[in-house]
Amino acid sequence: MDNSDGMIIALDAMGGDYAPACVVQGANEFITKRKKYKNVKFVFYGDEPRISSLLQNLPKLKNQSRIKHTSEYVASDEKPSIALRRGKNSSMRLAIDAVKKGKAAAIVSAGNTGALMAMSKLVLRPIDGIDRPAIASVMPTRRGKCIMLDLGANIDCNSDNLVQFAVMGDAFAKVMLGIEAPKIGLLNVGAEDSKGSEVVKSAAEELKEGDYPINFYGYIEGNDIAEGIVDVVVTDGFTGNVALKTAEGTAKICSDYIKAAFKSSPWAFVGGLLARFALKKSFKKLDPRLYNGAIFLGLNGISIKSHGGTDATGFANAIEVACELAKNDINSKIKEELSINHGLFNDEDELEAEIL
Amino acid sequence: MDNSDGMIIALDAMGGDYAPACVVQGANEFITKRKKYKNVKFVFYGDEPRISSLLQNLPKLKNQSRIKHTSEYVASDEKPSIALRRGKNSSMRLAIDAVKKGKAAAIVSAGNTGALMAMSKLVLRPIDGIDRPAIASVMPTRRGKCIMLDLGANIDCNSDNLVQFAVMGDAFAKVMLGIEAPKIGLLNVGAEDSKGSEVVKSAAEELKEGDYPINFYGYIEGNDIAEGIVDVVVTDGFTGNVALKTAEGTAKICSDYIKAAFKSSPWAFVGGLLARFALKKSFKKLDPRLYNGAIFLGLNGISIKSHGGTDATGFANAIEVACELAKNDINSKIKEELSINHGLFNDEDELEAEIL
Repeated sequence: MDNSDGMIIALDAMGGDYAPACVVQGANEFITKRKKYKNVKFVFYGDEPRISSLLQNLPKLKNQSRIKHTSEYVASDEKPSIALRRGKNSSMRLAIDAVKKGKAAAIVSAGNTGALMAMSKLVLRPIDGIDRPAIASVMPTRRGKCIMLDLGANIDCNSDNLVQFAVMGDAFAKVMLGIEAPKIGLLNVGAEDSKGSEVVKSAAEELKEGDYPINFYGYIEGNDIAEGIVDVVVTDGFTGNVALKTAEGTAKICSDYIKAAFKSSPWAFVGGLLARFALKKSFKKLDPRLYNGAIFLGLNGISIKSHGGTDATGFANAIEVACELAKNDINSKIKEELSINHGLFNDEDELEAEIL
Repeated sequence: MDNSDGMIIALDAMGGDYAPACVVQGANEFITKRKKYKNVKFVFYGDEPRISSLLQNLPKLKNQSRIKHTSEYVASDEKPSIALRRGKNSSMRLAIDAVKKGKAAAIVSAGNTGALMAMSKLVLRPIDGIDRPAIASVMPTRRGKCIMLDLGANIDCNSDNLVQFAVMGDAFAKVMLGIEAPKIGLLNVGAEDSKGSEVVKSAAEELKEGDYPINFYGYIEGNDIAEGIVDVVVTDGFTGNVALKTAEGTAKICSDYIKAAFKSSPWAFVGGLLARFALKKSFKKLDPRLYNGAIFLGLNGISIKSHGGTDATGFANAIEVACELAKNDINSKIKEELSINHGLFNDEDELEAEIL
């Protein structure tokens, strides 16, 4: 028996632009199309009547699911501090609590990112040795896939934070990309040692000199991300967020330019029909739904953020990220890497203050 | 007579991967293809015999050019501090000196970026009211073009720096994009007031509350750059550099994916032939050569950096940026905007120390 058999995933059924329908359909797509995970079980947290009615015509999913009713949920524009205080019975919070209590292997939500981060951090707490959890996700590259972190959890980072991101990113890449010794790159404005901020330079030095069980490549630049020069891109949350969104925006206008070109003349239109299949196949690699599901990495528990506007296929992908990480026990891997070296300790003081 | 008639541009003939050939060919393409600037004159700084021989078969260019011989040049990997000390007779330095002495309206170089920045700053000095000059360039967007700065001159910025970038970017956009009241956006990780670093938040407040003669839009995110939500994207040099290179890298893999798709099957190949013209036209808007020529903005003199690996067409574009900015007297416009408001003063103390 595979250890994913009987795995339970907690779902925030009320989070996201198309909740709860998209959450239920995503879960259904997941267990019907991912044979490997066909026996995964779900607990839906949210409005029982609505979820029940959505499950009506999905017998397999209904059979593998339970519903925990709550009429409360976190609004998409709610401030994290308000959500923390008032959202104790929200669908998001109850789903996170389930992970804390060991009743679920992971939680997936397409809801309010700030609230999910704050609640996950407060309830699940950072792993010993990690000062700042980071948002990490898989991204497409020319050579396949890479991991980038932090994508926005920490606006200001010091060099210790970046070093910890490198260690966590290493463990994440091993699990999600199946690479034995992932190449870790530090995002910078040039490849030379003299380039970059003091924070980046000191992180690089620590990663080079320190006793970390990782394969440190050195500096990379923005254009190296898409080229797939490294398997893990380490950066602060401000730069990572801007880089991710800039890449998404650029890919979107490229794809729109192609579509516009095919509509611009009869010849081009016919050309487009002939090349359609090949282009679709080529651009499928860039489909954002395939990369949906960012983890809030570095907590004692797996908390996955789905894009709020994704569809069932995208949500199913986020569930897959949750299952892969739970099945491979990502957090044990991170703890193991942290225990090999020393000097990566965290202070739990003022954790609440920091969260708020 | 147009005030570009008889305008003299100083060219660092020895800078760039394909120097001096690319520099000479770029200048030739410029005066033969840009009718508006057909009378612009050049002074080539560099190896006289090599430049002479390149000019041999270009009678028009030869007629409008002079050569100032020097056998010294700044190597592409030379440290800026070394270039400053030892490069006093280099082609780059002599070309910058010509602008300082009023013998040329602008200088264009495809050489070592760090050295060009350091030398330009030392020789031309920042404009009163500007603490930190910034690298600015035109970028393609869905709606046309935008300006982004800083692209890498200043790794760490404070809020005053960002405010000054906004003022300079405004003047630059008016000249280069011909927009009367350019929309100025501050790059951030979200649109809400609560998002971002303290530096970004305080710059936003100053731009909102302060008495600046600019059209401040507010925060934008990475994906808004390519969408063309604003005309000027203001950010620190670290983030701007990463965003620019990330966009370039992403556009490159998109264009390579298209080419690969057309080669993947006979149908797609025929489709590609039929759609070729339309696709070329569509993607021409993204051709990096059309955006070549970044200015080191905020100095008493126009210093333009061409990409080191560009071709004659790209170099001709960099010359065009120089001519447009000189013809429209960009620096007077910046000074005018600075004089309208107060509180944007600079300290010239420790300038050399800062440069080195």
